[in-house]
Amino acid sequence: METGGLADGRQIHYFNTAPGAGRASFADKRDLGGRVSAGEIRYDVLRDEWVAVSAGRSDRPTLPVACPLCPSDGEELTEIPAPGYEVAVFENRFPSFGGFGEPGPLPPAEVTGMENAAPASGRCEVVCFSDDHDSSLADLSPERVALIVRALAQRTADLSARGDVAQVFCFENRGVEIGVTLHHPHGQIYGYPYVTPQTRKHLDANKRHRAATGRDLFDDILESERGGPRVIAENEHWIAFTPYAARWPFEVHLYPDRRFADLAELPEEYIDSFAPLYLEVLKRCDNAYPGEQMPYMAGWHQAPVGEGREFGRLRLELVSIRRGPGKVKFLASSESVMGGWVHDLGPETSAALLQKDSPKGAL
Amino acid sequence: METGGLADGRQIHYFNTAPGAGRASFADKRDLGGRVSAGEIRYDVLRDEWVAVSAGRSDRPTLPVACPLCPSDGEELTEIPAPGYEVAVFENRFPSFGGFGEPGPLPPAEVTGMENAAPASGRCEVVCFSDDHDSSLADLSPERVALIVRALAQRTADLSARGDVAQVFCFENRGVEIGVTLHHPHGQIYGYPYVTPQTRKHLDANKRHRAATGRDLFDDILESERGGPRVIAENEHWIAFTPYAARWPFEVHLYPDRRFADLAELPEEYIDSFAPLYLEVLKRCDNAYPGEQMPYMAGWHQAPVGEGREFGRLRLELVSIRRGPGKVKFLASSESVMGGWVHDLGPETSAALLQKDSPKGAL
Repeated sequence: METGGLADGRQIHYFNTAPGAGRASFADKRDLGGRVSAGEIRYDVLRDEWVAVSAGRSDRPTLPVACPLCPSDGEELTEIPAPGYEVAVFENRFPSFGGFGEPGPLPPAEVTGMENAAPASGRCEVVCFSDDHDSSLADLSPERVALIVRALAQRTADLSARGDVAQVFCFENRGVEIGVTLHHPHGQIYGYPYVTPQTRKHLDANKRHRAATGRDLFDDILESERGGPRVIAENEHWIAFTPYAARWPFEVHLYPDRRFADLAELPEEYIDSFAPLYLEVLKRCDNAYPGEQMPYMAGWHQAPVGEGREFGRLRLELVSIRRGPGKVKFLASSESVMGGWVHDLGPETSAALLQKDSPKGAL
Repeated sequence: METGGLADGRQIHYFNTAPGAGRASFADKRDLGGRVSAGEIRYDVLRDEWVAVSAGRSDRPTLPVACPLCPSDGEELTEIPAPGYEVAVFENRFPSFGGFGEPGPLPPAEVTGMENAAPASGRCEVVCFSDDHDSSLADLSPERVALIVRALAQRTADLSARGDVAQVFCFENRGVEIGVTLHHPHGQIYGYPYVTPQTRKHLDANKRHRAATGRDLFDDILESERGGPRVIAENEHWIAFTPYAARWPFEVHLYPDRRFADLAELPEEYIDSFAPLYLEVLKRCDNAYPGEQMPYMAGWHQAPVGEGREFGRLRLELVSIRRGPGKVKFLASSESVMGGWVHDLGPETSAALLQKDSPKGAL
């Protein structure tokens, strides 16, 4: 990892397959003004959850003229000062969390009264997967995918050590159907100053399961799914399956075959074996409805940095709103307001669409 | 309420301002075949939640030729056999819950193992607000809105007595932006066989708050919001405000000034005073960005039928993904996968857009 700076003081990190690429030495020649900081987080008394308020983000550009994730090229100055790169990670210019320069405080563990706010500490980063604007994660080589995972692992370790990050979430949103406006292949990292609501549910469920059975819940899920009707792909270290109680029309969980708390704990051989399996899953997603790239959200569930860490488990979750050719599922009142989900296809039907042989012979 | 039957055995209820309209006497002359039942619910071990699997729904028509919510007219046979109506409620032909004819069992309170399913008991109903296809709830008279609320109250009472409904949710989805394909003004009712995840959070929060303070959480929220910067509208019995920790770009909560568990408990004068206030809120939403009807999801939070009922409170929540002129918020990985919300406008900014005087003088 080589670390450089951007014109407004943000950090940029280049991840290279060979040392000494010297990319961090290129200066950012733009005049960006001061750095933009996140706002605050507010405590939702009805849900016992923190919500970020990030008013500055509504002014962020929706369709920039030049792609800010391409390498800088002569007078065309972008977020990446170097003229080329493999994988680059930089602080988001319009962050929902952090951007204060120094780490901020964690929110209070106990709150009273109806209005409680704290600074939106933490960090938001952008992860560029390739300097080829027209590429896509699914088109990259296994070596590149492994380099991306190594970058995420390093960032997870670094953000976990900041002191104002309670949980690191690495994810990719892909597809205009889910509002992605920057088509350059990229992901993001959120270093939240709190443990997210979904993670708290998972930790609580595992805690209860261990107390009741003496076994780890994730081990039992793996044992139950392995060899079953919803397995999509597997190799020596990883298994990908649609879970029994899936809620998205397409939903794939990728587990390593044993427990790691987060990407920073993942051994080299697990990173290397993850890459081809994930590429196969992505190709199967794109082949589910021939001719239609599948929009998706894919994120790494990681154990929190502090309390509850021993109940967490690293795995990746990929979900899609695609529910048929040209059709997407909208999350309407039942899902959005009440959390009551309805699976329209049935988990086995959607798994079968991912299990079928590739019509293009691409697998 | 007059109750009739549809060709496949489903019930239809007509709500009229005057008795003896005789609408239920019109027979459904269609050949629909047998009734379509919901599938099952599956227990999600990682979240301690039930998820409905309703594979049959993916075959439901997306754009029927004739509107099924218009009254039947000669040879044009719809879901409403009568030639005209005020408010009509009928069982959804493609239900996510119920449709078995008789009430089904409630899911087990305790589950073990990794795969647990139960019948998707309960009920799904469609609520037609007017027989005028081109109308909209916001365009109706206060008297009609009050009749709709009376219909919802009656249905809440009836569904609560079934024995296979744990919670009744009455809601409206409006706008192509959130996937609504039937543009006839209508809402829906879900009688869930379980208490929804969001409601469980609210009940838990109130339970903790009462234990810690001796006061009701909803009373404290009302006291805190009243007279504050995010109040949108109020009258003798109701207050509408954007909450302190709102998460949707536009979010309005409408509370009665004292506690009712559900719509069935609401006194007549509260129903009559709700109607004009809600119409004002809807008009303010449509005026936030002139010329753009606001897509929204609006639902009544009601206390569960059984356990936890004493901690619940009736109120309406209206949320919108509109975040600017021609712009909508997409719920991407942070919200969808982790439950980590970011408010892009800021609750006070969005409240101010609803507080401003109507540019059309329509209020």
